[in-house]
Amino acid sequence: MNTPAENTGNPAAHAPGMPVIAVIGDGQLARMMQTEAIELGCSIRVLAGAPDSSAAQVCADVLIGDYTDIGDLRRAVDGADAVTFDHEHVPNEHLDALIAEGVNVQPQPSALIFAQDKLVMRKRLGEIGAPVPRFAAIDSVEDAAVFFDEVDGAVCLKARRGGYDGNGVWFPDSREGLGTLVEKLLSEGVPLMAEEKLSFTRELSAMVARTPSGEVRPWPVVESVQSGGICVEAIAPAPGMSDEQRERAEKLSVSVAEALGVTGVLAVELFEVDGEIFVNELAMRPHNTGHWTQEGSVTSQFEQHLRAVLDFPLGSTETLAPVTVMANVLGADKEPEMSVTGRCVEVWRRFPEAKIHLYGKGYRPGRKLGHVNVVGSDVEQTRKTAAAAAHFLMHGEWDDNYLNKKEH
Amino acid sequence: MNTPAENTGNPAAHAPGMPVIAVIGDGQLARMMQTEAIELGCSIRVLAGAPDSSAAQVCADVLIGDYTDIGDLRRAVDGADAVTFDHEHVPNEHLDALIAEGVNVQPQPSALIFAQDKLVMRKRLGEIGAPVPRFAAIDSVEDAAVFFDEVDGAVCLKARRGGYDGNGVWFPDSREGLGTLVEKLLSEGVPLMAEEKLSFTRELSAMVARTPSGEVRPWPVVESVQSGGICVEAIAPAPGMSDEQRERAEKLSVSVAEALGVTGVLAVELFEVDGEIFVNELAMRPHNTGHWTQEGSVTSQFEQHLRAVLDFPLGSTETLAPVTVMANVLGADKEPEMSVTGRCVEVWRRFPEAKIHLYGKGYRPGRKLGHVNVVGSDVEQTRKTAAAAAHFLMHGEWDDNYLNKKEH
Ligand SMILES: Nc1ncnc2c1ncn2[C@@H]1O[C@H](COP(=O)(O)OP(=O)(O)O)[C@@H](O)[C@H]1O
Ligand SMILES: Nc1ncnc2c1ncn2[C@@H]1O[C@H](COP(=O)(O)OP(=O)(O)O)[C@@H](O)[C@H]1O
Ligand SMILES: [Mg+2]
Ligand SMILES: [Mg+2]
Repeated sequence: MNTPAENTGNPAAHAPGMPVIAVIGDGQLARMMQTEAIELGCSIRVLAGAPDSSAAQVCADVLIGDYTDIGDLRRAVDGADAVTFDHEHVPNEHLDALIAEGVNVQPQPSALIFAQDKLVMRKRLGEIGAPVPRFAAIDSVEDAAVFFDEVDGAVCLKARRGGYDGNGVWFPDSREGLGTLVEKLLSEGVPLMAEEKLSFTRELSAMVARTPSGEVRPWPVVESVQSGGICVEAIAPAPGMSDEQRERAEKLSVSVAEALGVTGVLAVELFEVDGEIFVNELAMRPHNTGHWTQEGSVTSQFEQHLRAVLDFPLGSTETLAPVTVMANVLGADKEPEMSVTGRCVEVWRRFPEAKIHLYGKGYRPGRKLGHVNVVGSDVEQTRKTAAAAAHFLMHGEWDDNYLNKKEH
Repeated sequence: MNTPAENTGNPAAHAPGMPVIAVIGDGQLARMMQTEAIELGCSIRVLAGAPDSSAAQVCADVLIGDYTDIGDLRRAVDGADAVTFDHEHVPNEHLDALIAEGVNVQPQPSALIFAQDKLVMRKRLGEIGAPVPRFAAIDSVEDAAVFFDEVDGAVCLKARRGGYDGNGVWFPDSREGLGTLVEKLLSEGVPLMAEEKLSFTRELSAMVARTPSGEVRPWPVVESVQSGGICVEAIAPAPGMSDEQRERAEKLSVSVAEALGVTGVLAVELFEVDGEIFVNELAMRPHNTGHWTQEGSVTSQFEQHLRAVLDFPLGSTETLAPVTVMANVLGADKEPEMSVTGRCVEVWRRFPEAKIHLYGKGYRPGRKLGHVNVVGSDVEQTRKTAAAAAHFLMHGEWDDNYLNKKEH
């Protein structure tokens, strides 16, 4: 802490009369907000950890600092019309302090807490009648044993805070395994909760944006395919849903946004079990399952997020194609010998319709390096194209059976 | 000249392993290239006249300098994988010098000359059999008088170089008027040409991208509506053309790109006269009549331009909607009292489907401040929405008859 911020702030980066949004965090979400800010004529000041981070690379007003340091936060938000986030990890006490000083923070910590703490989220969603798996606080090995029996051993243990991409989620398959894990994690000081492990048909994501004034617009619900806890694919709209099911999921996302006072973009991750839906978790920012909107929706989630946090009217969330598929580009175990531009060239040569989005990051196993969006009319064909393109970008070789091999 | 460049060059702005494109010029075209560079993971270094110019505002690697100064140009292109342009005004002798030094300039001066000098362009197009209006070099009042008679007084006088938005185009209505004008302009050292003033039905624009390797992809031909020499609206695809007419215009743009060795995006401005087409002029960069591609085409002209100058495979130019309309936002004589954000809010409240693009420029009469894109299915409805939105952004008041009042 107390890292002195290296302020490379640049007043020339901000257009006359147009709002400035301070974005805390320097990842690909902040980067893609900049893409949309440019077109809106707004501008972004990024609080970044490093000058060559994904977002800092592409912004003209970058402040290098630490998002857990109130001094750095104060410098980053100075003069901004709104403050928003690339991630959920800014300490809420700092946000409360900024709000007390008159800073316009969106979403507010009173909403953010439900994206930060999975137990607090589960309790609140239960209160508002949103469908959630059975769950319990786990403060001891005994709590764990009791819950294990309650759910007949179908248990999912979760770190309450700080998890991402499946880190912080465990599926112990015995009471003993659960006990050992709980004991270890509690002794490390990790606050825990458990929930019923659902045998879901698939995962869905219902995304919505809401403004401080209360305007709300959902996008169509999408199917999201995870592999090892990481989102690898999103299909928009989710195939095979009845109108009634779609509407139910969209209404759920709207009611969660309203009940929790969310502003900006909200992603409601869902499990589909025999046509019923249960909420998994919430994200209060643009989300991996919303990247398809860049090509597939009139208003992308990044533009909508900026408009929402500025309390501007929201844009149309109509789709531009019968189907849009997003496939993530993740670092493989071994970096391909072919250069990244060489891989792009091969992909584009074969698929002129593949929209490659890269985040400016160095190759590292498991790292989210980019994504590919493809719009189309046939679901399976579009999925195949997106998957084959993403696979080539990851591995430097074609594997057209990639889609069939993915865990579902 | 010899202005020392203030190099704010920022190595951290460039992603590992990804190409750097040096863009000469700091206007909205360079700005919108940055939007696409971010998503491609490439990066842009801008040679800008001022740190708060349209493009400099949004780029992380900005060099302040003078594009007519070879020293500034050298610094701007240092280490870049390709060099391209926001405008046509870089002296060709400097570009030749850079090429001799091994710099990858795209498009090359051997092609650029046809976008810089309207007489050279007319001659070359005539040679390759492209349909052009009758024309003549005007080096004296006598030349002008001879040509006036040749075209029965239907004369259009043009400055050979440096014209834009109708500056540098005159329609004298008498032989005397023409003579006086020619005398004045020649005495001021303005090189001139004249061509037949065509009574066109409408103006069209055929856009295409071409790579150094020779891949070519046209977009659908659009109708472009000018008012006072400035493009105010583009309708994509151009309504009411037969398949055969479309194909002829697209083929023409392809053959011009190939014959002239154009690389990057080429706009071929056309006049439609009784179903026949004639070439007006050429632009070798993204063009106002191609802004619709940001929302209406799988690949926008800005992404395509970057891919083309890097000799990457080109993207699909399929449309995403039955019709996309672009309406320009130009500064009116008087700046509205309502703030620019206030105007955006009103437009979005009424038209959630209106995509507003702003260039970060201060308000000035006649200045291109931004544009609005609207995708739709009904041509007249979509035109009305785009026009009403643009009108409000310009004037701060509604005028739904705006479209009908425009000169056609
Ligand atoms: N209760 C559950 N039942 C079955 N699978 C689950 C459950 N909770 C999480 N998962 C699986 O683990 C993934 C990651 O869990 P999640 O709580 O979303 O953590 P993260 O914060 O890492 O995204 C989910 O997308 C899902 O595939
Ligand atoms: N030969 C012509 N006949 C009729 N109108 C013309 C002719 N040439 C130009 N114009 C009109 O003037 C506008 C501007 O001319 P152009 O040569 O394109 O100049 P600029 O470089 O300013 O765009 C055209 O878009 C068209 O409306
Ligand atoms: Mg999750
Ligand atoms: Mg013109």
